[in-house]
Amino acid sequence: MNASPDIHSVGLRIENGRVLVLDQTLLPHQEIWLESTSPQVMAEMIHVLRVRGAPLIGVAAAAELGRFASTGVSKSEWLEAAHLLRRARPTAVNLMAAVDRMISVAGKSSNWNPEALAGEAFRIFSEDQELCVKIGGHGACLIQDGDSVLTHCNAGALATAGIGTAVGVIATAWNQGKKIHVYVDETRPLFQGARLTAWELGKLGIPHTLICDNMAASLMASGKVQKIFVGADRIAANGDFANKIGTYGVALAADYHKVPFYCAAPYTTVDLACASGNQIPIEVRNPAEVRLTYAPSETAVWNPAFDVTPGTLVSGFVTDRGVFQNHDLASNL
Amino acid sequence: MNASPDIHSVGLRIENGRVLVLDQTLLPHQEIWLESTSPQVMAEMIHVLRVRGAPLIGVAAAAELGRFASTGVSKSEWLEAAHLLRRARPTAVNLMAAVDRMISVAGKSSNWNPEALAGEAFRIFSEDQELCVKIGGHGACLIQDGDSVLTHCNAGALATAGIGTAVGVIATAWNQGKKIHVYVDETRPLFQGARLTAWELGKLGIPHTLICDNMAASLMASGKVQKIFVGADRIAANGDFANKIGTYGVALAADYHKVPFYCAAPYTTVDLACASGNQIPIEVRNPAEVRLTYAPSETAVWNPAFDVTPGTLVSGFVTDRGVFQNHDLASNL
Repeated sequence: MNASPDIHSVGLRIENGRVLVLDQTLLPHQEIWLESTSPQVMAEMIHVLRVRGAPLIGVAAAAELGRFASTGVSKSEWLEAAHLLRRARPTAVNLMAAVDRMISVAGKSSNWNPEALAGEAFRIFSEDQELCVKIGGHGACLIQDGDSVLTHCNAGALATAGIGTAVGVIATAWNQGKKIHVYVDETRPLFQGARLTAWELGKLGIPHTLICDNMAASLMASGKVQKIFVGADRIAANGDFANKIGTYGVALAADYHKVPFYCAAPYTTVDLACASGNQIPIEVRNPAEVRLTYAPSETAVWNPAFDVTPGTLVSGFVTDRGVFQNHDLASNL
Repeated sequence: MNASPDIHSVGLRIENGRVLVLDQTLLPHQEIWLESTSPQVMAEMIHVLRVRGAPLIGVAAAAELGRFASTGVSKSEWLEAAHLLRRARPTAVNLMAAVDRMISVAGKSSNWNPEALAGEAFRIFSEDQELCVKIGGHGACLIQDGDSVLTHCNAGALATAGIGTAVGVIATAWNQGKKIHVYVDETRPLFQGARLTAWELGKLGIPHTLICDNMAASLMASGKVQKIFVGADRIAANGDFANKIGTYGVALAADYHKVPFYCAAPYTTVDLACASGNQIPIEVRNPAEVRLTYAPSETAVWNPAFDVTPGTLVSGFVTDRGVFQNHDLASNL
């Protein structure tokens, strides 16, 4: 049953062939691990954001498909499950890329080979850890001792299988001994900054201050922010990129105040099939996430989960392959 | 005892000499009226935002001072109360202007004259209603049939003694038969857009859609917003103006997308003693307003209640005296 060694991250574990997910909807107050017992369960956990973060949902989907392969299912049942998981969230390209790698391995075997799939899931997991380390190293060079850095949403260890992308850069700089301070956008509507990034930075011991998203522009005007790092769910060939809703407004304020604005993501987030940002599908979610208990219950809501930031507003894309300008992205694949 | 006639607005009533305030912290789910029984009670209601909105807190403070004058207090006791109320919120100039008018009337009477103070409070109340009508008329000319309009926070009937400033403009255009749609920023941290503006627009029957503050830039990029109207707590002589936190980010996004951005306020909001925005004191409030139940309880927070938008980003100041550019403001006093 245990086709590959155990491996774990802050939010995901493959352990004795079981796949366990830290329920991110309950953070920071409760740390509860849930078991993925079927592709349907994992798809639902992705959909309701128990497991989230563009790189992590790809790794988690692969982990579940690796596990599911070893349960005695046929290849056609497995392929159906793979396609179900591939559709669980439409914006992030990592999910599709990870599932496609699994499908490709399934296709290669002339015989149905569950062990090869478990092995591929393990490789996807460990490669993501290495990608994070490389991103962290390239990005940390951009942070100077004494800098204050703003981040949006959670592009941390909870969003990847490793140390994170944007937060991984920050953590790497911190571990190099640079004294930094992090401003954390709370990130409405689901408060990933307040709930997850503040929790992670607290665990890492990195000084940080929480703000509402709408305070970021004022913070920049006051000169309190030297660099901005965010993650990405998909980067188009021209450098336009989709990330958590609110990223675009941060980029506009950064542009106005001439604060360098970096997008940190594994190179696999670049989707050359997307020529520009307007081809990236944007998931629209439940109005209740915005209304909470505050708005009149009948109030109409617009709730896009992501927005698209033009590549021209990005000072650099911090990837595992190095730091690129938007116009250099396509030539470095 | 009843020194002046009754008068009322959506959120404030002077009735048989009593002063009643609609508790805005309980909206939209409960409509509870509270009685102001002392200047201390009113100052506390202003501080915790049971009564809020730059023009309304000025009118409410004057109403309480008019009532308090008739309770048998001495002029020195009354003056002490007036100075207490004048300090209840530091950013809005209307509060100070209204209290100063009351103090001026108190100073003029060679004999202590409570009836003159009740009369002045009534005039401040009714004048604010007239100012709103004039602002609405000037601003409605800027809205075309079919426009979608974005607003931030609540600059509506609940923020004034009349029909509102920014929302007053929208309501006037609507009453002229223009088919408009309003996008409402929820306005973190205290959700005045979700709780108050959505409630008001619902009562007025004006179609509207609620968004998180960080969705406004994306909304503008999609071409869905033709005009933006916001209120103001204080306008400096050069047109820099303080308004609810988040206004500045909206202005930056509007500038980038070339969406006309208007600030609607009574001319009395212009403070010529402030040469520029960096002289406007910004109230910093309780971290718990930002943390809610989401962030770890020990997380540090920065919670400024207002920000300053440069006058150069404002397409026009819609006042009771007409619509002005930032460089024309000082010459029209």
